Amino acid sequence: MIIVLKQGTTLEEKRKIIENVEDMGLKVKIMKGASQSILGLIGETAKVEESAFFGSPHVEKVVRIKVPYKMASRAFHHTDSVIRVGKHNIGDGSLTTIAGPCCIESREQLFTIAAEVKRSGAHILRGGAYKPRTSPYSFQGMGEEGLKLLREAGDQFDIPVCTELMSTDEFELVESYTDIIQIGARNMQNFSLLKKLGSTQKPILLKRGMSATIEEFLMSAEYIMASGNPNVILCERGIRTFENYTRNTLDLAVVCAIKELSHLPIIIDPSHATGRWELIEPISKAAVAVGCDGLMIEVHHEPDKALSDGPQSLKPEKFAKLMNRVRHIHDVCHEEKKTSDTESVAILHAVI
Amino acid sequence: MIIVLKQGTTLEEKRKIIENVEDMGLKVKIMKGASQSILGLIGETAKVEESAFFGSPHVEKVVRIKVPYKMASRAFHHTDSVIRVGKHNIGDGSLTTIAGPCCIESREQLFTIAAEVKRSGAHILRGGAYKPRTSPYSFQGMGEEGLKLLREAGDQFDIPVCTELMSTDEFELVESYTDIIQIGARNMQNFSLLKKLGSTQKPILLKRGMSATIEEFLMSAEYIMASGNPNVILCERGIRTFENYTRNTLDLAVVCAIKELSHLPIIIDPSHATGRWELIEPISKAAVAVGCDGLMIEVHHEPDKALSDGPQSLKPEKFAKLMNRVRHIHDVCHEEKKTSDTESVAILHAVI
Amino acid sequence: MIIVLKQGTTLEEKRKIIENVEDMGLKVKIMKGASQSILGLIGETAKVEESAFFGSPHVEKVVRIKVPYKMASRAFHHTDSVIRVGKHNIGDGSLTTIAGPCCIESREQLFTIAAEVKRSGAHILRGGAYKPRTSPYSFQGMGEEGLKLLREAGDQFDIPVCTELMSTDEFELVESYTDIIQIGARNMQNFSLLKKLGSTQKPILLKRGMSATIEEFLMSAEYIMASGNPNVILCERGIRTFENYTRNTLDLAVVCAIKELSHLPIIIDPSHATGRWELIEPISKAAVAVGCDGLMIEVHHEPDKALSDGPQSLKPEKFAKLMNRVRHIHDVCHEEKKTSDTESVAILHAVI
Amino acid sequence: MIIVLKQGTTLEEKRKIIENVEDMGLKVKIMKGASQSILGLIGETAKVEESAFFGSPHVEKVVRIKVPYKMASRAFHHTDSVIRVGKHNIGDGSLTTIAGPCCIESREQLFTIAAEVKRSGAHILRGGAYKPRTSPYSFQGMGEEGLKLLREAGDQFDIPVCTELMSTDEFELVESYTDIIQIGARNMQNFSLLKKLGSTQKPILLKRGMSATIEEFLMSAEYIMASGNPNVILCERGIRTFENYTRNTLDLAVVCAIKELSHLPIIIDPSHATGRWELIEPISKAAVAVGCDGLMIEVHHEPDKALSDGPQSLKPEKFAKLMNRVRHIHDVCHEEKKTSDTESVAILHAVI
Repeated sequence: MIIVLKQGTTLEEKRKIIENVEDMGLKVKIMKGASQSILGLIGETAKVEESAFFGSPHVEKVVRIKVPYKMASRAFHHTDSVIRVGKHNIGDGSLTTIAGPCCIESREQLFTIAAEVKRSGAHILRGGAYKPRTSPYSFQGMGEEGLKLLREAGDQFDIPVCTELMSTDEFELVESYTDIIQIGARNMQNFSLLKKLGSTQKPILLKRGMSATIEEFLMSAEYIMASGNPNVILCERGIRTFENYTRNTLDLAVVCAIKELSHLPIIIDPSHATGRWELIEPISKAAVAVGCDGLMIEVHHEPDKALSDGPQSLKPEKFAKLMNRVRHIHDVCHEEKKTSDTESVAILHAVI
Repeated sequence: MIIVLKQGTTLEEKRKIIENVEDMGLKVKIMKGASQSILGLIGETAKVEESAFFGSPHVEKVVRIKVPYKMASRAFHHTDSVIRVGKHNIGDGSLTTIAGPCCIESREQLFTIAAEVKRSGAHILRGGAYKPRTSPYSFQGMGEEGLKLLREAGDQFDIPVCTELMSTDEFELVESYTDIIQIGARNMQNFSLLKKLGSTQKPILLKRGMSATIEEFLMSAEYIMASGNPNVILCERGIRTFENYTRNTLDLAVVCAIKELSHLPIIIDPSHATGRWELIEPISKAAVAVGCDGLMIEVHHEPDKALSDGPQSLKPEKFAKLMNRVRHIHDVCHEEKKTSDTESVAILHAVI
Repeated sequence: MIIVLKQGTTLEEKRKIIENVEDMGLKVKIMKGASQSILGLIGETAKVEESAFFGSPHVEKVVRIKVPYKMASRAFHHTDSVIRVGKHNIGDGSLTTIAGPCCIESREQLFTIAAEVKRSGAHILRGGAYKPRTSPYSFQGMGEEGLKLLREAGDQFDIPVCTELMSTDEFELVESYTDIIQIGARNMQNFSLLKKLGSTQKPILLKRGMSATIEEFLMSAEYIMASGNPNVILCERGIRTFENYTRNTLDLAVVCAIKELSHLPIIIDPSHATGRWELIEPISKAAVAVGCDGLMIEVHHEPDKALSDGPQSLKPEKFAKLMNRVRHIHDVCHEEKKTSDTESVAILHAVI
Repeated sequence: MIIVLKQGTTLEEKRKIIENVEDMGLKVKIMKGASQSILGLIGETAKVEESAFFGSPHVEKVVRIKVPYKMASRAFHHTDSVIRVGKHNIGDGSLTTIAGPCCIESREQLFTIAAEVKRSGAHILRGGAYKPRTSPYSFQGMGEEGLKLLREAGDQFDIPVCTELMSTDEFELVESYTDIIQIGARNMQNFSLLKKLGSTQKPILLKRGMSATIEEFLMSAEYIMASGNPNVILCERGIRTFENYTRNTLDLAVVCAIKELSHLPIIIDPSHATGRWELIEPISKAAVAVGCDGLMIEVHHEPDKALSDGPQSLKPEKFAKLMNRVRHIHDVCHEEKKTSDTESVAILHAVI
């Protein structure tokens, strides 16, 4: 961490700031510029906040050199993390597909869709029992009854299941029924909920908040990991911008960012990112081409009757076609990646 | 609500959509344009979601005419809501000031600051016992011990207190100690928490999420009101934009928007909106000039040693000066408003 | 266009608004709701502005049904526009690649890079002679000398060239040397410049402004087309958001939007969209997978010595590898698209 | 400027980067951290771009310490710049009001409005003769005929005039008729136009682009100043965000930012910032309370018949009332500012 002092800071004031820093267990190096001094902080700075120094009227700028997360960081864990769910691996270079209805509405609805997505090759079945709805007057989900149906469907079709947890109150309940616990975008910084997730080892699918920076996203993963659960799967679902053609603006560069900064797998949710079923196939193909570890897609056999998010649900036959197409893209990219990796190894050898 | 059908929609398809609408208990009027039909939905449309119709491939656009909130809406409650806290009224045309440390750190710290803000005329004492921190490694607040200190300070200095609730787990605890329950920006759409707030009648200070639209903000107020607690105070604290000179971008027009759309009082938090203590006075003056019902300001006697948000905390003497200055602005504006109201009445009489 | 009148609008006031509308040569249909009336405007509404009605205190909402652009719209020209440049077609289903240095710096630099990109299969050579730089102290380009070098390189390597026009002052000069005229993001709403482009038939590469909506983007294309030049190629280069990991946030859904709303070809500029050379390959693959008509990529043989945008320039060998990889993605997607089209025809026949 | 090198950079690579820096005429200081080195660049860094170093694969971060503008910076010119227009001073602590129609439509329209705004105490008359319109089919302004009317109105009512310049083509024409040349938000980075403005000494009113950072805003002012014209008045008119209740989101903190970073005066345009006449008075009061140097307000006697921007135009009687009210706010704030300044002087003396 670097602290830029304001022009005109006296020796006495500088000394005080240095003492403050040393009280935090850090060492300080000083660089004198033409008109300003710069302090370099050496030590365990990941846990120090920039704002700790901003209270001082003599500090002009604080620049973080090391990232503020540790366990989520690539520096902490060099190889990609692979998260196991049932017999399926997420993050091992394969393409994971999570599919199912936005909202569990009935046994018939869930089982119809489950059969279809399983047949098309989906690896995990999704379905909401507790739904975060903007309006208190909208359908809020079937609750425990929905969880039971989901568990049953998972067992019958031999497919792991994933459902959203909205509150610490329902943690034990949801955890007991599901294989993956999903945390929605609106709860990405619900820190009480994040901490609670440390008490299970079941994988957590953490969605990026709609205006969260990549650093905040990884800090929320860090909360879960620091609480005791290393099994975090990140999920990008679009950010909010001025452009309203799509429901959100999908930021695909985040896949590259996460691959550089972290070892955690990242999947893309094109359904929420676009809000329009016609865009799900092209955007899914783009997501796979950019290198994501998986896709999360809403499927409904009667989207015009869906109780939630009908406009962004694919019909089963469209989903089947999409599965084929994204697999082709994945195959092409995967083949090339293997070649690149061999090249990298070759270069490495040459260097040594 | 208006539904614009796509060009080329057949009579049969149109009939089906109309049946769907009528099944919701609504009436339909049809307007035929040159190439497209438009359906007008008449009835209780506040509870109908736009997305309910988007699943159909024949629907081009859905336009809401009536707002989706009811209890929070100005149409539902024509006169301004006044929220009583102890002996103080919020929303009655006076200027309410909530002040205190971001975070309760110790008895000495809290009581020193409480004495100062009370002396300067603050109406409510704030202080965080549970703190939502981006990093799991940052100080997370004193918890119940902090709540006890806050209650004690409130009693000793005869000033109502306000503190943040982060989780349903701590609802009973926090509710038992505080006079106003604050819900932070990151929890604005924590719907489980919002619903829980219906089980008290204590006022709720609801902060706007950092990327929430005004409609979403009022829908979150609606959640609390629909759950049984009408005592909601709105609080704007800046939205996230591309501009980083300030921590957030304060959207002061929201005060005008809320006054038009809702009857609830709205206060401004210039501390979080700017993140810089030098800006708090000018921005507070602007907030009062635009017509807000109050201000929420962080005060710390030793901001460079604050455990949280030091850079945006005012020293007590600066706060005292600010209090005088915003009162002057409020007096000028209030005087004029009374004149305007008399004028309006005069005009009204003339019309009748 | 639909006008929603406020509750309480008198018959007399309504009559006046209707007269205003009829004076514009439009017909009006009226729909009475439970508490509000809605006017439907029928006729040539593309040229009417929403704001024309907002001056009235009785108008609550104005909703446009038809898009405000005509010549750029898919409704006006059903099949995809194909723009011819030399012997190359843009928008015919093939993948066009435009490559070269950000800035022309010297004959040696330009010719070295031109040879390389031609060898790798690029279809068009780019190079800036007039550079829009944020700072007046940055290198502003070689001017006419640069244009001459670009023309010479194009002729020598038998490749059409593309360069940016910044001002009407240099229109004749730039137009005389280049095959495609590029309009930068900062000039997307430089309306004087757009009008001037109507006096040539050379293709215009129009970049989206960094905070332009898709509608504004197409309206700027409309300016050029309405002035007499139908040969517009759209180019997305990222929009400005709160996220700063990349220079801009690339909005790939814009490709789907443009394909739906317009007949014009759209290409993607991953160099400006990301600002980082490591991201150009993955983002290019995503852009091709989503269905864009081409890519515009900055290439430099010595990026650490480039006078502009070095960090986002690919070295020639990386560019060669990228060309192969995006071609694979394009082949996979193109093959599938042909199948889809055949299917669509089949379905169409079945319907008839 | 600080360069943070990546972990693992070799001595040889570090030496090369240092040589590059020294070739730019800068000195380098080195600080070694636990795992990374940091280079401090000393000298004329304002003219060096961050991106110059990003081409190197060994550079992790580049942090600017000094601002990249010089003539526009407070460090270059400590006291506030006062811009003289006719007999009126802008930036001397008084409140300047610029008022008039968005668009000059006819002699009768302009003279009616000019008489009204002059009577209410406006200092400068505005009116557009060349209008930047999103649609090529909208009224584009009266051109030279409009300029003549504006000049005539200015002379008859003894009030300086201000009008927008859109293109270098019309520079001589516009410059010959107007007292202040306005550059619109969409042309803030039309660098050819900015450079041209150096050939006059008439004041330039430079509007902030709708997604321009404060640094980019000041860099555009720097373009004009570096070209030879120091008389720049900045104007904030709202930025584009996700919130659509108002046309733009007014960022009032920019006034504080500009006062800290620059010596140039800054005025606020509440008409474009909000797009709604009902908000103009409250937002104007806020703008004055925060400390701006002036207001630019659209006035029209028949806003429902205005050819442009009717919804955001005030009627003359509302404008007259607004003038009184903002003057009251200004008086209160100005009185206090004088007291503060005296205090500052007192403190200064004490320090010496």
